Amino acid sequence: MEKFLITGFSGFVSLNFLNFLECSQIKSRVLGIDVYEPEFDFSKYNFVECSFQKKDLLLKDQIEDIFNSFHPDYILHLASYSSVAFSWKNPIDSFANNTNIFLNLLEKIRSLNLQCRILSIGSSEEYGNVKENDIPIKESQPLNPLSPYAVARVAQEMISKVYAEGYGLDIIMTRSFNHIGAGQKDIFAIPSFAKQLIEIKNGLKPKEITTGDLTIIRDFVDVRDVVTAYYYLFKKGNKGDVYNVCSNKGTSLGEILFSMAEILELKVVPVIDKNLVRLNDNRIIIGSNEKLRKEIGWNCKYSLEESLRDTLAYWQSK
Amino acid sequence: MEKFLITGFSGFVSLNFLNFLECSQIKSRVLGIDVYEPEFDFSKYNFVECSFQKKDLLLKDQIEDIFNSFHPDYILHLASYSSVAFSWKNPIDSFANNTNIFLNLLEKIRSLNLQCRILSIGSSEEYGNVKENDIPIKESQPLNPLSPYAVARVAQEMISKVYAEGYGLDIIMTRSFNHIGAGQKDIFAIPSFAKQLIEIKNGLKPKEITTGDLTIIRDFVDVRDVVTAYYYLFKKGNKGDVYNVCSNKGTSLGEILFSMAEILELKVVPVIDKNLVRLNDNRIIIGSNEKLRKEIGWNCKYSLEESLRDTLAYWQSK
Repeated sequence: MEKFLITGFSGFVSLNFLNFLECSQIKSRVLGIDVYEPEFDFSKYNFVECSFQKKDLLLKDQIEDIFNSFHPDYILHLASYSSVAFSWKNPIDSFANNTNIFLNLLEKIRSLNLQCRILSIGSSEEYGNVKENDIPIKESQPLNPLSPYAVARVAQEMISKVYAEGYGLDIIMTRSFNHIGAGQKDIFAIPSFAKQLIEIKNGLKPKEITTGDLTIIRDFVDVRDVVTAYYYLFKKGNKGDVYNVCSNKGTSLGEILFSMAEILELKVVPVIDKNLVRLNDNRIIIGSNEKLRKEIGWNCKYSLEESLRDTLAYWQSK
Repeated sequence: MEKFLITGFSGFVSLNFLNFLECSQIKSRVLGIDVYEPEFDFSKYNFVECSFQKKDLLLKDQIEDIFNSFHPDYILHLASYSSVAFSWKNPIDSFANNTNIFLNLLEKIRSLNLQCRILSIGSSEEYGNVKENDIPIKESQPLNPLSPYAVARVAQEMISKVYAEGYGLDIIMTRSFNHIGAGQKDIFAIPSFAKQLIEIKNGLKPKEITTGDLTIIRDFVDVRDVVTAYYYLFKKGNKGDVYNVCSNKGTSLGEILFSMAEILELKVVPVIDKNLVRLNDNRIIIGSNEKLRKEIGWNCKYSLEESLRDTLAYWQSK
């Protein structure tokens, strides 16, 4: 029986991680914590015994409670305000709900001398703008955060490193690139496109679709591939090391939009909303997943088209 | 009349900055804020009109108050829990009282659209361990923070950069190396040595002197040279840029200890206290002050011996 604590339990990455455990028939006990109640049913699993507690990692006494009755083997730290756009509007809240919550959690683990492996999720945003020669971006690339969110993620990663090297905690870090898949909230670009396209398809909306800058290029990785990587990082990752979790491929937001429209056999007119064009945005981010492939034996299983079809199917079903 | 807001007003750097303004006959108004009352007399100046308010930068309503009646031209942000040793024991408090207080302050300045120049003080600790070839350390050196304090300082600097580039705030950053001079608290090595040596000199203590690792090498810069650099950075610094504030020279803690003993004509026996030997400590830190010299026209005026003599005189006078 493997025991997992999942922070940020109510998000779609967590749901996909539970699905991975179930599909892989890994007998496990999971305690999920989040400030929000999960909207999915977590009692449906055969292999995964799951419970939830509403906890705020900004409140130290609430963190204390977590470990009173549950001693995890693995902590999957997904909790994050992960929107770059939000961070420009609310830098203090973004910072608190990335860096400070993680520091609070680690400090509790340290003070309790809890033996467990922790996966600290970071972001490709940590890299900032990189030169064409440095693409695909390797883990050795210097970090150059360009938004409050990116700074918060770099700080989280640096804290992880200090806790691993200075205090001996067993922490592994990721820099995870753009997720794609069913269940993601429509504050992000792809689900927002998918939702609007389904509305157009169903005649609920004219053919105009609100977008940000469609020319920026990102590395999209299916959330099911992401959670598989997380599981194998728990099993095979190197303590104190950082791993890109990405597809090695770049796609513009425009390509994604028109691919989805094509799947639905729609013609759409993008209308750029200036409010969705970010300050100081990185033009192109493509990661190298060589380290993850070589050290962990992981590989992407889902093609971009499969991911887009499944994302659209999810929004159709809602 | 130049108007300065000084955070961390009650510390010895602030006192030296006030002395600099006075000695330079710069007509100025200063509002000092701190969580601690200053222990020095700030009513004694002719050119500097100074007031103090007790404020905690962790409390947003207290920051609001600061700017109700005072609109500074310059903000000298000295507030910091700047002990590495403290940060290993209390990483959360260290982080809050470096990174979070600064973010809170910047966010208030941004939301009020306050036009002023801000000096964000950072630390040589941001560099971590560097190879011999990279010494003296230039500002282009990648950052590699090795303690909770160092992480907090890097986060502060990255926040500064984002606020300068993303929001357009007029911020200049420093990486300030080890300060030396009268008035520094004896939680730091040099004043602790000086205090103990004076006690030995006055027959109040046997010849054994408690120290940490005496072999580590640091770049010590007189606090009077530091505050001169800060003033000229306000006047001539380049927005969004970072500047080393250092002497370009390395001295081991052992050399400092024995130089001070020699000045006092004492023979002392160092006794290493393992609790004072830091986890994960950087062996050697020497900075390059070329950028500061070339761009700002600053230079060190005080020799190490002068600084040590003045430090000893201060502890003798206490």
